[in-house]
Amino acid sequence: MTGRLYGIGVGPGDPDLITLKAWRLLTSAPVIAYPAPEQGDSLARRIVAPHIDGSQIEIAIRMPITAERFPAQEVYDRAAEELAGHLNAGRDVVVLCEGDPFLYGSFMYLFGRMLERFTVEVVPGVSSLNACAAVLGAPLVARNDVLTLIPAPLPEAELERRLGDTDAAAILKIGRHFPKVRGVLDRLGLLDHCRYVEHATMADQAVLPLADVEADRVPYFSMILVHRRGEAWR
Amino acid sequence: MTGRLYGIGVGPGDPDLITLKAWRLLTSAPVIAYPAPEQGDSLARRIVAPHIDGSQIEIAIRMPITAERFPAQEVYDRAAEELAGHLNAGRDVVVLCEGDPFLYGSFMYLFGRMLERFTVEVVPGVSSLNACAAVLGAPLVARNDVLTLIPAPLPEAELERRLGDTDAAAILKIGRHFPKVRGVLDRLGLLDHCRYVEHATMADQAVLPLADVEADRVPYFSMILVHRRGEAWR
Repeated sequence: MTGRLYGIGVGPGDPDLITLKAWRLLTSAPVIAYPAPEQGDSLARRIVAPHIDGSQIEIAIRMPITAERFPAQEVYDRAAEELAGHLNAGRDVVVLCEGDPFLYGSFMYLFGRMLERFTVEVVPGVSSLNACAAVLGAPLVARNDVLTLIPAPLPEAELERRLGDTDAAAILKIGRHFPKVRGVLDRLGLLDHCRYVEHATMADQAVLPLADVEADRVPYFSMILVHRRGEAWR
Repeated sequence: MTGRLYGIGVGPGDPDLITLKAWRLLTSAPVIAYPAPEQGDSLARRIVAPHIDGSQIEIAIRMPITAERFPAQEVYDRAAEELAGHLNAGRDVVVLCEGDPFLYGSFMYLFGRMLERFTVEVVPGVSSLNACAAVLGAPLVARNDVLTLIPAPLPEAELERRLGDTDAAAILKIGRHFPKVRGVLDRLGLLDHCRYVEHATMADQAVLPLADVEADRVPYFSMILVHRRGEAWR
């Protein structure tokens, strides 16, 4: 019997925001795998740490720093072969994914490699989008509102065009792009309709007025939510 | 001691896609409330049915059919007063929300009414967006892709403009708008880059090729996912 491959969303950070389904798979699989930096801890592994006892086979899929911005094909090729070994030996493998596996998640690169060779199931998770809205007390969209998810690394003119033509937006992957984003929001008159949060639902979560954010210390895991009516329910 | 109000996402349909946090609140609160049609069952209540034993106080917030398309202010005013009665008597109240409370959810109308009078906590849930992607095996977005959530009731010209100017889209609330949506996707040459699912993760889930969808039986709980590259990981 060949094993099954599961890509499970572990949620945005709070260990209790994992689903019952993902929790059952996580705690019963003989093998778990997770993305990790070249050196140091895996965030996905840290999120589920309270749920596991260390008795499972663990595979850290380590991504070289130089490949952080684009998927390193060889890393995924090698990881796919290692997981295939366990699956062919009849062991189920659970791959941990921060948030939801299919919303800007690196699991898709493994998924694309394994789909035709093995049975693959994806278990959706609570994404940072929903977690940020909950933490900020900011409903995202109502009725027939359009919501646009906009990565902050996009060019300034594109950010401005898209933010100016949507009911609501979530700006992601902010980091060093914060000054550019703030400038665009200012020009569009949206500064009063924005909310900022970093590390939502994690131990170091911070909700700040946009004016108080220090541009040189904005992390990658931060988000700005915007609604042109100020509040979606109005 | 005044009670606390919780708005909890119960996930997209599969009862096991509720989070541990929401499950704990759900099973321990003395009072649960949920949206319901004027007559008949509540979908949110049906999703959590396997988890509860009928011993809690239950409040169905019934929405008249005529008010389905827009929030009926009086219904929410009355519900807010009923919930306030329990909270003032020291009882915690858990409001069930299909999917995630703040992504097109009606909970925001109660939230807006209760926020200044009571302690309100929102527990994010797995949204239908993430569930549909998982069920379809269709990663939503990668790298710096823009994702647009587009309600199908919008005018045809707006659908066409927005679908023509995004990397990826989720088209929601389709129902009787299916022919209009299909026409737009056809004109944009996107028919081969679309996937269709209805009632994702529910017992009556159906994944169909777009060509096989019967226009006169498309439910409200259906979704079309589009990616201009066909697959997000390419």
